[in-house]
Amino acid sequence: MSGQYYAARPMKLVAQNYGKQRVRVMKVLRSAPRHEVKEVEFGVRLEGDFESSYTSGDNTKVVPTDTMKNTVHALAHEHLARQTEPFALRLAQHFLKSYAQISRVTIETNEQRWARLAVDGQPHNHSFLAEGGTPVTKVVAARTGAVELASGIENLLVLKSTGSGFKDYPKCAYTTLPETTDRILATSMRATWRWSAPPAADYDFNATNAAILDAMLAVFANNHSPSVQTTLYEMAGAALALCPLISSVTLAMPNKHYLPANLKPFGLDGTGVSFVPTEEPHGQIEATITR
Amino acid sequence: MSGQYYAARPMKLVAQNYGKQRVRVMKVLRSAPRHEVKEVEFGVRLEGDFESSYTSGDNTKVVPTDTMKNTVHALAHEHLARQTEPFALRLAQHFLKSYAQISRVTIETNEQRWARLAVDGQPHNHSFLAEGGTPVTKVVAARTGAVELASGIENLLVLKSTGSGFKDYPKCAYTTLPETTDRILATSMRATWRWSAPPAADYDFNATNAAILDAMLAVFANNHSPSVQTTLYEMAGAALALCPLISSVTLAMPNKHYLPANLKPFGLDGTGVSFVPTEEPHGQIEATITR
Amino acid sequence: MSGQYYAARPMKLVAQNYGKQRVRVMKVLRSAPRHEVKEVEFGVRLEGDFESSYTSGDNTKVVPTDTMKNTVHALAHEHLARQTEPFALRLAQHFLKSYAQISRVTIETNEQRWARLAVDGQPHNHSFLAEGGTPVTKVVAARTGAVELASGIENLLVLKSTGSGFKDYPKCAYTTLPETTDRILATSMRATWRWSAPPAADYDFNATNAAILDAMLAVFANNHSPSVQTTLYEMAGAALALCPLISSVTLAMPNKHYLPANLKPFGLDGTGVSFVPTEEPHGQIEATITR
Amino acid sequence: MSGQYYAARPMKLVAQNYGKQRVRVMKVLRSAPRHEVKEVEFGVRLEGDFESSYTSGDNTKVVPTDTMKNTVHALAHEHLARQTEPFALRLAQHFLKSYAQISRVTIETNEQRWARLAVDGQPHNHSFLAEGGTPVTKVVAARTGAVELASGIENLLVLKSTGSGFKDYPKCAYTTLPETTDRILATSMRATWRWSAPPAADYDFNATNAAILDAMLAVFANNHSPSVQTTLYEMAGAALALCPLISSVTLAMPNKHYLPANLKPFGLDGTGVSFVPTEEPHGQIEATITR
Repeated sequence: MSGQYYAARPMKLVAQNYGKQRVRVMKVLRSAPRHEVKEVEFGVRLEGDFESSYTSGDNTKVVPTDTMKNTVHALAHEHLARQTEPFALRLAQHFLKSYAQISRVTIETNEQRWARLAVDGQPHNHSFLAEGGTPVTKVVAARTGAVELASGIENLLVLKSTGSGFKDYPKCAYTTLPETTDRILATSMRATWRWSAPPAADYDFNATNAAILDAMLAVFANNHSPSVQTTLYEMAGAALALCPLISSVTLAMPNKHYLPANLKPFGLDGTGVSFVPTEEPHGQIEATITR
Repeated sequence: MSGQYYAARPMKLVAQNYGKQRVRVMKVLRSAPRHEVKEVEFGVRLEGDFESSYTSGDNTKVVPTDTMKNTVHALAHEHLARQTEPFALRLAQHFLKSYAQISRVTIETNEQRWARLAVDGQPHNHSFLAEGGTPVTKVVAARTGAVELASGIENLLVLKSTGSGFKDYPKCAYTTLPETTDRILATSMRATWRWSAPPAADYDFNATNAAILDAMLAVFANNHSPSVQTTLYEMAGAALALCPLISSVTLAMPNKHYLPANLKPFGLDGTGVSFVPTEEPHGQIEATITR
Repeated sequence: MSGQYYAARPMKLVAQNYGKQRVRVMKVLRSAPRHEVKEVEFGVRLEGDFESSYTSGDNTKVVPTDTMKNTVHALAHEHLARQTEPFALRLAQHFLKSYAQISRVTIETNEQRWARLAVDGQPHNHSFLAEGGTPVTKVVAARTGAVELASGIENLLVLKSTGSGFKDYPKCAYTTLPETTDRILATSMRATWRWSAPPAADYDFNATNAAILDAMLAVFANNHSPSVQTTLYEMAGAALALCPLISSVTLAMPNKHYLPANLKPFGLDGTGVSFVPTEEPHGQIEATITR
Repeated sequence: MSGQYYAARPMKLVAQNYGKQRVRVMKVLRSAPRHEVKEVEFGVRLEGDFESSYTSGDNTKVVPTDTMKNTVHALAHEHLARQTEPFALRLAQHFLKSYAQISRVTIETNEQRWARLAVDGQPHNHSFLAEGGTPVTKVVAARTGAVELASGIENLLVLKSTGSGFKDYPKCAYTTLPETTDRILATSMRATWRWSAPPAADYDFNATNAAILDAMLAVFANNHSPSVQTTLYEMAGAALALCPLISSVTLAMPNKHYLPANLKPFGLDGTGVSFVPTEEPHGQIEATITR
């Protein structure tokens, strides 16, 4: 009744999607005494013929988000292994196959990395230490057959204590920043790379993703940084150079400022040595680079 | 040098933006004994002719993000008053006017609301209590003259203890959710509305935004909810009905589940009375509705 | 075996406790069309004769923390009503009665407040808006019969835009803070008060707690603040004056700094008008006041 | 005036302390091409003859918390090096020496660890990756000369995928937990150890702290865990056995539950393989062990 009231107005649903977020899974891969652990959080989003659920209270096409959660748990038990990408692709296809009203499925994942704990210098068989940096993947699969796949990492906190500067920028009445040829550069980076086409399910995503990241971090470490922009661009270049199967790289790099400590009131000069880490405000640089 | 190395590859910058996030401002509007306080956090993002900063280490067009911060502080001191929208519009134009290399400016704001503290039943002149729900605005201003303005609110946590159900949905092998005609519905809503054109600077945004929100919350409270989707759609309808100056409404409503407590093992029936609030996983429903 | 190895060393367990944290409960009190909702999170900690679980792998006295969670859910269904304190007291006694090995039970609670949503100016029967400030209680009940009960509130964010200063403090080589007779004072206060003895279960805790808080906030608002310390002390005094049944008040008041914006480089004077809110570092003042 | 009003009541200040929290410092130790970075956050708390600041608005003894911040920055520039403990001890003594009204100083620190980034398999000279687990220290220094020093680590997230069980516990009407001989054990541990007396400033705290942690983690990994309690006790034993200079160990180990996934409705058995990570509720085990 209330729905009819508003349906009487000329209104148009121009975009809609729904799904379940933060579906968490832990698999213990224990085929050998040397266990592997795989902890992944999933987000599932559906688009399609769901308009009647908005406009007329009709749920007959609405796959419950609780069912999405169950599906992730059941399929993960059967199919999730060391690599996230093949499973995310399969999960997306499952929803398309199961429900005709879905036109597009988006699966997003992020992973809690667990490094093997070293005990007496030896990697332990079944004990693990949480590792920083969150691997992510994203699949967008359409009923048309089109599939997009991206891999990457976020929350990776890196810093260089020299080899970075910022100068020759334009000045105006509101400019107070001094130029510098030596500063700390720190970022909590998010990097994702798009696969030209999804590689075969037995492709070694884990190894390639690690190699891409290593290539980007080598640039971060080795190249002098005249700006976050240049460093970002060169890191993307290193990723594209490393892996011919990826078509683009998107990087988001907050500039986590370490401000020079002002020690002049105390007769001290902290230049290059003493800094104050700050959370806010922060710079933010984002770009997408293709071949 | 390192830049040249990568520039040698065929690479293309297909999207880039940069700016300053989390620039915080507090204004005390103290023209009368009855103070007003206005606490807003700004994000500034620029797009434009900044490619050379990525590809050749050239900073001569890069407005420092520190300058953006200073600009926010200085202009806020001079111009920020009770309403955020006129100031956000002015701030965007300032950047376009000051720097020819900018093609587009995005200003995003969120506000810490402060309600007047009641003392002995009377609203106090200069003491305040933080209030939930974060008003937001977004301005996108282009050198072409095009300006988009949106207002809204996020993190607004609302709940209804009855008047909500969910049934008649499709079932499959992975469906375990029981149908219900009476459940708790809770969400931390994000609602934004786009203005057809930016109203004049002396328009009463605060009053209209409050009225739009009230209209949406009345629907949330009064209308029976057969699904989050229907409730979202009807809330958008109420907003569009209330204010002819807005052209679309976008709502994001996480379904913050309150699961029925399973008390059967203890010989108890908690139906409709005892629930377990959960943070994860959660449903998520998002849609944009236009006229 | 491994346990015996370490037990061979001369080691002493000088303190131990264990329990379940973050047990969440929502009750819908629906005896009338006008519902009440009560959302509380519990922590349960036990002390007692549990040494053998540490020293010899003996679990025969270890009440599982999962059982604690179940107990909270079951007893909350049967007994939790509008007031938290009587239920927390009952819950503590339940554990003492059920398990002889327990010498002391600590129950800590925090509550998500839900204010009735106003629709067309009228409080709604079953729709609610989250409210800031988290009411807390703490019960420590011993087998000896001794019972301590405290009530209070935390995360209550309040601010005064004038009526606060800080001057006449000692200076040294590291002092750069200018004296001020007019600043913003803001805090996210935690206030708890200890009951001389637990009042009867039908005592109106909710009303008294609200009155105590009002009395403290009136002092915060009305009294000139020469320092956080003085304001804290006067607020405690107001609480003790208001309610003869409480024996002490403990306050923790972070000084959430709003720094004067430095606008001199831009030829502006922001004194008393423009401030920069900061999260870190922050002052912290804590004290306990008794009669 | 307002102060006098409340001072007229019989009130007693039974405990008070104040200070500055979250004072952040980054030092770049660059005596060689191979930089070291040291990022530490400090909390400073003072106790002493500060009563008049509470009771009569007298600030003449109140060292501003802003001065504490400045002091940390200035002394850190001059004295903070690779080890936190000697600096924390020195910082505490500085306050005692500088201000006669202080009877006791508490310094707490936590450190952002930065591991050297590996580039082409080689540790880089000036690039770093954030590392999990937060080293902490605590100094309590009194005017009497008494000094307590503790070191440790918090937020260290570790997990074992087998070698843990929980059985033979008491059952009651509220027990539903099944016994298990094989579960996942995960915790975000906090471990601190008290030094019998502060070692000399040139003592190698970093190496000893690392060795103590390694010894505890070896026990976590290698010993079968019949309960968190036993594992905690054995870990403390390993720490005490490793380092004769520490007199006690305090451990807080939340039991971060990985619940067996319930796949029965889908005809699957997830035992030992599929789990659901949960944040709440969680067990919590805390104990202090001395020699």
